[in-house]
Amino acid sequence: MKRLTIIILLIAAISFTGSGQKKIVNVPDLPGYVTLKCDFHLHTVFSDGNVWPTIRVDEAVRDGLDAIAITDHLEYTPHKNYIPVDHNAAYKIVAAYARDRNLILVQGTEITRSMPPGHFNALFITDANLLAVDSVWDAFEATINQGGFLLWNHPGWKAQQPDGIPRMYEMHHRLIKNKWLHGIEFFNYSEYYPLVMTFCTQYNLAVLANSDIHGIISEQYKNHTNRPMTLVFAKARTHEALKEAMFAGRTLAYFSNMIAGKVEYAKPFFYQCISISKPFYQSDKSTFFEITNKSDIPFYLINGVPDAPASITLAANAVTRVTISKKVTDPLAYEVKNIITGENEVLKVELNLK
Amino acid sequence: MKRLTIIILLIAAISFTGSGQKKIVNVPDLPGYVTLKCDFHLHTVFSDGNVWPTIRVDEAVRDGLDAIAITDHLEYTPHKNYIPVDHNAAYKIVAAYARDRNLILVQGTEITRSMPPGHFNALFITDANLLAVDSVWDAFEATINQGGFLLWNHPGWKAQQPDGIPRMYEMHHRLIKNKWLHGIEFFNYSEYYPLVMTFCTQYNLAVLANSDIHGIISEQYKNHTNRPMTLVFAKARTHEALKEAMFAGRTLAYFSNMIAGKVEYAKPFFYQCISISKPFYQSDKSTFFEITNKSDIPFYLINGVPDAPASITLAANAVTRVTISKKVTDPLAYEVKNIITGENEVLKVELNLK
Amino acid sequence: MKRLTIIILLIAAISFTGSGQKKIVNVPDLPGYVTLKCDFHLHTVFSDGNVWPTIRVDEAVRDGLDAIAITDHLEYTPHKNYIPVDHNAAYKIVAAYARDRNLILVQGTEITRSMPPGHFNALFITDANLLAVDSVWDAFEATINQGGFLLWNHPGWKAQQPDGIPRMYEMHHRLIKNKWLHGIEFFNYSEYYPLVMTFCTQYNLAVLANSDIHGIISEQYKNHTNRPMTLVFAKARTHEALKEAMFAGRTLAYFSNMIAGKVEYAKPFFYQCISISKPFYQSDKSTFFEITNKSDIPFYLINGVPDAPASITLAANAVTRVTISKKVTDPLAYEVKNIITGENEVLKVELNLK
Amino acid sequence: MKRLTIIILLIAAISFTGSGQKKIVNVPDLPGYVTLKCDFHLHTVFSDGNVWPTIRVDEAVRDGLDAIAITDHLEYTPHKNYIPVDHNAAYKIVAAYARDRNLILVQGTEITRSMPPGHFNALFITDANLLAVDSVWDAFEATINQGGFLLWNHPGWKAQQPDGIPRMYEMHHRLIKNKWLHGIEFFNYSEYYPLVMTFCTQYNLAVLANSDIHGIISEQYKNHTNRPMTLVFAKARTHEALKEAMFAGRTLAYFSNMIAGKVEYAKPFFYQCISISKPFYQSDKSTFFEITNKSDIPFYLINGVPDAPASITLAANAVTRVTISKKVTDPLAYEVKNIITGENEVLKVELNLK
Repeated sequence: MKRLTIIILLIAAISFTGSGQKKIVNVPDLPGYVTLKCDFHLHTVFSDGNVWPTIRVDEAVRDGLDAIAITDHLEYTPHKNYIPVDHNAAYKIVAAYARDRNLILVQGTEITRSMPPGHFNALFITDANLLAVDSVWDAFEATINQGGFLLWNHPGWKAQQPDGIPRMYEMHHRLIKNKWLHGIEFFNYSEYYPLVMTFCTQYNLAVLANSDIHGIISEQYKNHTNRPMTLVFAKARTHEALKEAMFAGRTLAYFSNMIAGKVEYAKPFFYQCISISKPFYQSDKSTFFEITNKSDIPFYLINGVPDAPASITLAANAVTRVTISKKVTDPLAYEVKNIITGENEVLKVELNLK
Repeated sequence: MKRLTIIILLIAAISFTGSGQKKIVNVPDLPGYVTLKCDFHLHTVFSDGNVWPTIRVDEAVRDGLDAIAITDHLEYTPHKNYIPVDHNAAYKIVAAYARDRNLILVQGTEITRSMPPGHFNALFITDANLLAVDSVWDAFEATINQGGFLLWNHPGWKAQQPDGIPRMYEMHHRLIKNKWLHGIEFFNYSEYYPLVMTFCTQYNLAVLANSDIHGIISEQYKNHTNRPMTLVFAKARTHEALKEAMFAGRTLAYFSNMIAGKVEYAKPFFYQCISISKPFYQSDKSTFFEITNKSDIPFYLINGVPDAPASITLAANAVTRVTISKKVTDPLAYEVKNIITGENEVLKVELNLK
Repeated sequence: MKRLTIIILLIAAISFTGSGQKKIVNVPDLPGYVTLKCDFHLHTVFSDGNVWPTIRVDEAVRDGLDAIAITDHLEYTPHKNYIPVDHNAAYKIVAAYARDRNLILVQGTEITRSMPPGHFNALFITDANLLAVDSVWDAFEATINQGGFLLWNHPGWKAQQPDGIPRMYEMHHRLIKNKWLHGIEFFNYSEYYPLVMTFCTQYNLAVLANSDIHGIISEQYKNHTNRPMTLVFAKARTHEALKEAMFAGRTLAYFSNMIAGKVEYAKPFFYQCISISKPFYQSDKSTFFEITNKSDIPFYLINGVPDAPASITLAANAVTRVTISKKVTDPLAYEVKNIITGENEVLKVELNLK
Repeated sequence: MKRLTIIILLIAAISFTGSGQKKIVNVPDLPGYVTLKCDFHLHTVFSDGNVWPTIRVDEAVRDGLDAIAITDHLEYTPHKNYIPVDHNAAYKIVAAYARDRNLILVQGTEITRSMPPGHFNALFITDANLLAVDSVWDAFEATINQGGFLLWNHPGWKAQQPDGIPRMYEMHHRLIKNKWLHGIEFFNYSEYYPLVMTFCTQYNLAVLANSDIHGIISEQYKNHTNRPMTLVFAKARTHEALKEAMFAGRTLAYFSNMIAGKVEYAKPFFYQCISISKPFYQSDKSTFFEITNKSDIPFYLINGVPDAPASITLAANAVTRVTISKKVTDPLAYEVKNIITGENEVLKVELNLK
């Protein structure tokens, strides 16, 4: 038999495996800011995760992220019979590895307590071992002393809140009073907590989406949905600028074709995603035009004004053809069903025909 | 049982079927021109195709095309026992249908003769029935009299050229002498003919890629390959501007991750597709930077200069990380294996680090 | 450049297009019967469909069907300006074409009236033109005179029943009294009508699932869902045996991971799909075993007995590992959420461990 | 906004992630034997792999394997600064985990030396730490003393054989003379070594296909190709029967739509995969029949006899329609291009029409 035959068969088998490349996540920058795609909640074999830390860097680069934090549990290290505990190990292992791949690496760890106060990620710290102390409040203080960012993780996790509804206890209020709490997860893994929008708006906290992955990213988030990402609007693509933006709360949470966050970021984000054409045709009764959505996020517009379409789906990376009656004179106002700006609120937008 | 259950199961079943939306084909414009994506060779039930003409419009809109021509055979109408012959029928059926969907419809037909001279599409004509005449030369003349564009189809089709190599016969030379021949297909269906580059360069003809589809586009061209498209560099997205650009020969042929055409269009097209970052890291020995390829076309760079990577794959819609030795002082010259500019030539490019 | 390169690139492009092959639909036979996969409701350009009849044969063979009927509308022929009306044309065009592909072709047509009585398919007829008469009752009688099978199509179609709920009018009762009505569609296109189970049980009619496709099957039913199929339990894979089974009402309706039909067929069908292993491990408290589901249909078991899993998903073409407490002594009874046996009933089954 | 909306969006996002289920690998048993699907070459964080051992069990169960061996390097443990070396650790960690999932776990390790003799897996051993000795021959002897099976890994690996061609050195001949060598890898990762068929035939050794995976199986072997598997024809699905079959050399190597192995197993394997129908139609000149291939492996038949099709592709899990001229009187002999039985030989088969 000819060698060529086998070679071609093997090409078919292996041609799907690439390397060294990152996909482009199509989300727009905001005026004056670059949008950094981040995941601040990842586990490895150094706590109860199942992968070596380099896998987290490879996954992030492939998925088009700009920054990650590895946040292994301080208080839960089930592999310790085989791996001696050093809470800085994962960070040390990948520091140069991430640098060579143009990925911003944020040092972090997870303070892992029963509720209250629950689980918190300490981000932008410098020595995780100093946070491994008995008193959770001491761990919080050590975070702050290192210039760290405190993130309240999955506040409605059913293992700690059986009804799934986040609650602020005394210690959470004390953190807020001290200005020690800086953000809360709206999306975690494959869950979401609407009430987080109320907390973040009231106390001006960053809204986050993180994967909290223990296994394999590509097996958990497949096909036509993205992994959770915190979109951070930073002045530059640097560790310093990322840190400044996080403390300033300039974020949106993005997961599964949904955006959650404050109106001040969600509104310009939506308008940067879409563009509206001039009419390409006019009949006696109707105007025909197109809306281009250059982002990876479909937008579901609902509750249109009379004589306009009641709903419009702006598919991702697609051009949508819209026909409206010439009777419509009002602005084309819609609600965007999948941009969540409050516990029971979605973004209101207007489409302005050129 | 709960009704909701069935509803959710049905959602899963039907959520993949969209409508009214066209995907964005990521190919860049050239300076001063808009890039129109076109397929000038399509069949329907009005000759030996298997679909009603509206299907061709729906497919084209969905696939992000800007213009199509339906080109049913004049001389081969196997359905005539059931469908009386009218060579303008398909055009009439979809004229308004295409207009309402913002698709430019070019009237056309296929003059279908044995070799020589083979098959020719008459494009931008006004009455196909006038081309249904005995003498092929009379059909050519009728095309020209209507202001039409003559395209030589699949010149190396094995049914007419058993060795697959295109040949110019006396009648082809006469067409060229008369300036009646305006373009040749480099790609047809799933074939290609390298020698077409020689003919098109020598006689300054447009280079085309068309599907020649008789069945279903989405079943022929699946997954990670595009349907054949002729990219036309027009002054505007109008029927008139398209026609001007076609007669001027401003085209590239695009199919299956390959581009074929003249250097004057291929070179700026490549440079519009990619952007090169500043170095994001420098070690003692190496410089690390990134190349972004915003197009749907991967580029395979080969034959690099010494000390630079011998080959680089710039995956589509992705950022590629490149590391080069600091010993490299020459310009980073490469050949682009999948941009074909001559029968045995590919495009030569240089990567200029900022 | 080397020719080989282009060849390999083209292989990648076209290797996904096969031909002449049909997939195996993994549904079991019943004891004494062969299970024929059928679609008895298809349109072509000869009424308001968009494809030539041969496409319907190609689709059916590829999708693993055993039998189809092309059922163009008698009373709605919008292409008649281009295609003269002959209600037998589609059948004549594909009769030999289907035979050479081992597909059973049932002659049919759609009697298309406003409600009541709505739309009916006449199947197993011999001359559709004889059914094109003014009185719908005369059309029914002509069907019966030809030995035909009368199928009530989409009885809850919202264009004819705005609330989506099927209703029997006087004429339906008259059909039943005459024994002229033989079946009703439970699934049509992407809809379903639970009340059909009540009608079919009460009057002993065949339960059907048909596509009613006008466009392209592969574009309507994508990825991990099947096209609608009527499963017919016939004594042999022949036109005669199919006809006998249809009049005897031995059918199940299958679509979108759901089965609907009478218990007498649904129950043995389920048990033919699955097999239960001996325990592969026993701990002090639990028994571990596996259930193999060799069919393409996942089964969602719910409402388990105490100490057994409350629900079990038996994924399609997969082996599911089940662990039960040794406290369980009762038979392992479950309801199968996606096997519908009545308007508000699903199949009840027992899992018998070896 | 309604909560339901978000819930449905999340269902779409997470519905692709299953658990507890294994897919059915469609390969037939041989008469008298059950076919066990095995991967005897896997790495974890305990040498230079990137995952915790439980991931290897999860992957294997999901992929439908019956048995695996984790074979971390004895001599190469780059994570030792973080993970103290214990060559039995991975086995201990997953012993009960595999048992509860009905996966046969074979204890193993990789003896990792430069060429000669190269890398060898010791399988079916009882204490890997006893193999961590200076002399490679002592390591071989320790393997044999534990009743182990010695597998020569990737004998043509270019890092050790720059021309990619396996060579037998003195030590390999000594192993064979002692009957200490029991098998060789034909497929490793995404490579293959044709000459291995010569060695295995000459010395009656088992032919293997293993993944040698260090990263994530699902990211390396995607879409329509399988991971490498050694198919073992055992008297039962037990550890003991597996061991007996391996020492008896009853195996085939399976990867990327290719089978490699001895004719005595390859031939009945092929005939168990397919069944040939009676003719379903006969014209004056031709006989029409169908061949069903129930396996996951397509078969490419080539070099047909005169008047029969020159080649036939029997797609996987599909029925192929075949038409042959009535002039053909000889047996329908073919070569199966993708069943490799020697360095330059493929399997010869005959199709017997009923």
